[in-house]
Amino acid sequence: MPQLSQLAGVLPASPIRKLVPYAEAAKRKGTKVYHLNIGQPDIETPAVSLEAIHNLPDKVLEYTHSAGIENYRRRLADFYNRRNLGVDYTNIIVTTGGSEALLFGFLAICNAGDQVIVPEPFYANYNSFAMEAGVEIVPIKSFIENGFALPAIAEFEKKITPKTRAILICNPNNPTGYLYSKEEIEQLRELVIKHDLYLLSDEVYSDFCYDGREHYSVLNLKGVDNNVIMFDSVSKRYSMCGVRAGALISRNCGVLDAVLRMGQARLCAPYIAQVAANAAIDTPQSYFDDVKKEYIARRNCVVEALQKMDGVVCPCPGGAFYAVAKLPIDNADKFAQWLLEEFEYEGETVMVAPATGFYYNPKDCPQDEIRIAYVLKIEDLQKAMKILEIALGEYNAKRG
Amino acid sequence: MPQLSQLAGVLPASPIRKLVPYAEAAKRKGTKVYHLNIGQPDIETPAVSLEAIHNLPDKVLEYTHSAGIENYRRRLADFYNRRNLGVDYTNIIVTTGGSEALLFGFLAICNAGDQVIVPEPFYANYNSFAMEAGVEIVPIKSFIENGFALPAIAEFEKKITPKTRAILICNPNNPTGYLYSKEEIEQLRELVIKHDLYLLSDEVYSDFCYDGREHYSVLNLKGVDNNVIMFDSVSKRYSMCGVRAGALISRNCGVLDAVLRMGQARLCAPYIAQVAANAAIDTPQSYFDDVKKEYIARRNCVVEALQKMDGVVCPCPGGAFYAVAKLPIDNADKFAQWLLEEFEYEGETVMVAPATGFYYNPKDCPQDEIRIAYVLKIEDLQKAMKILEIALGEYNAKRG
Repeated sequence: MPQLSQLAGVLPASPIRKLVPYAEAAKRKGTKVYHLNIGQPDIETPAVSLEAIHNLPDKVLEYTHSAGIENYRRRLADFYNRRNLGVDYTNIIVTTGGSEALLFGFLAICNAGDQVIVPEPFYANYNSFAMEAGVEIVPIKSFIENGFALPAIAEFEKKITPKTRAILICNPNNPTGYLYSKEEIEQLRELVIKHDLYLLSDEVYSDFCYDGREHYSVLNLKGVDNNVIMFDSVSKRYSMCGVRAGALISRNCGVLDAVLRMGQARLCAPYIAQVAANAAIDTPQSYFDDVKKEYIARRNCVVEALQKMDGVVCPCPGGAFYAVAKLPIDNADKFAQWLLEEFEYEGETVMVAPATGFYYNPKDCPQDEIRIAYVLKIEDLQKAMKILEIALGEYNAKRG
Repeated sequence: MPQLSQLAGVLPASPIRKLVPYAEAAKRKGTKVYHLNIGQPDIETPAVSLEAIHNLPDKVLEYTHSAGIENYRRRLADFYNRRNLGVDYTNIIVTTGGSEALLFGFLAICNAGDQVIVPEPFYANYNSFAMEAGVEIVPIKSFIENGFALPAIAEFEKKITPKTRAILICNPNNPTGYLYSKEEIEQLRELVIKHDLYLLSDEVYSDFCYDGREHYSVLNLKGVDNNVIMFDSVSKRYSMCGVRAGALISRNCGVLDAVLRMGQARLCAPYIAQVAANAAIDTPQSYFDDVKKEYIARRNCVVEALQKMDGVVCPCPGGAFYAVAKLPIDNADKFAQWLLEEFEYEGETVMVAPATGFYYNPKDCPQDEIRIAYVLKIEDLQKAMKILEIALGEYNAKRG
């Protein structure tokens, strides 16, 4: 039997994959499971997008331009420019979700063995895209004590080597919900200029900023046009995760040209995804106002409940729809499995993502943190929080 | 300015990219251009698929399972099994077009620097996927004189090194239209057993086999379950190139597991593409009968016209919708450009793909071959062939 690649041996499985059989078993037993473990919102996709799909006029579903449908790119540039990002449509390459944008970005700027520094905890799939591109992720810890703020620049400098090609952030952050400030982004600007690095920013949650705070994009930075690459997606903005339309945005012509050639190789991003995303640009502001109001209520529900629980630490996140909480438990992986395998309260339980899956080395990180995605209705979140509180008591009593 | 990757410096542009400005200029002058250069069929997408899109019932367009929607995988397995391919749905991972399947396949079995042997001319994008995966393509020439049949196994053996991981074929072939026989595929079976290699087969044109000949898939081979990976796509089968639904099919659990983890990283293949592809499985047989009849008529129209032209060699292809012709010219790149830039006949011209773009080294290959995609209506193909014949005379007279 021919050998597999080394990559095949090390690529991580989805962090919650090993919990899935326990969730399925719980459901088979009749237990209701509240899913706080994944970022699949229940918010409806905008009607304008669904209508565009329902009214698709084509008789032949043809390839599109490899950089994306020009009309969509132009309207997307207008969308960004209403946020003062200063984007020309030629700065945009439409991708198959934000995922492809990240892979293409890594491939355009990194050789095998090159390093990209990422504050951790971080979106687990960065690791997979990096491995596929032969890139080494170099993590730099952020801490729950200050809400997972940007690590000190001095800490970044300690990690920079001749192999470092880029700093990658996710803003607002998945999994922490932390919203980086303008000052933090400006600090990164100085750092990438000083060390001649790329600044990569995954901004797929940019629509989800709370408490009156504005999102500050890396595209707002001056004098670093050749350093900055932004990754975007319509998945969360319009609650159309399954559509798979993303974008890579840069003013660096070399990056754009390389990414276009990768785009030509795979021919095009999905046509209907582009139709849906293009139509979504006409989504009325009221949709976003309603969604934001709903998420703030959900966040407050979850965070306030967590903060009231004995021994739980949960900083209030400024964006996205995730919160990381430190629980008074020995081990979040065991606890998450126990919730599904052994626990139920009035026939219900919750599924959470152990935060170990969001650290580079699951053994060299806090073992007592979980990520909660507040993507359920308020009444379900209230029940889920009650269940979690009761579970914490029972789990510790049993082990005490 | 931070450096780009080495990959960015070497990734090829689409082979016809440099002709596009000339085609655009010709159109601006009012010249009608018959596009024989790309494999974008004019055949209508099946009505069942368009209806499924128009009737999409969802309110939220959610992620699907990373391996694809289970119902689609099961129905796709049934589809293959009606062709006696012996596929379980768990052997299938749904991908974003055949393109992603190829990239995932390379990544699952090759380390950086490993080699994959491919008969040339070959589909140009194999080179890009290989480069993205750090893989070296090792070409092995096939020749127009025998219709681009499989090179002798002894020639393959000369190319095998300790770094060789796989043989990759495209069957029926793009760009040559050659349909490999059962005997040729069986020869490759012996070869991959002997040298413990993977046998990769791109079968996206398997529905397009002519003259009563049947397609022989690598999945039909016995005793090589761990060696075989098949790549498929709905792009050509149902004329839905823009949809982007493909599949990787293998019975090798290690390959499937690694590809699933790549699939989990990018979350899912496009949902609506899967809906369209799933519905397409109910396309009536009459659709395929009509399409095949049409393509045979088109092929005959093109090939017979070419064979009648002075000094032109064009073997009759057994499948796909491409033909490679050897023309009595000095240089196909120059000729293709001249057709767009300087020539017109009654206000019309043709755009063809120089075959140099389908060889590993465009300088070490026949300079007088073109690929013709017979994806236009008969009357347009007839006109295009007349234009080509007149152009050949004029081109050579001018240069004579």
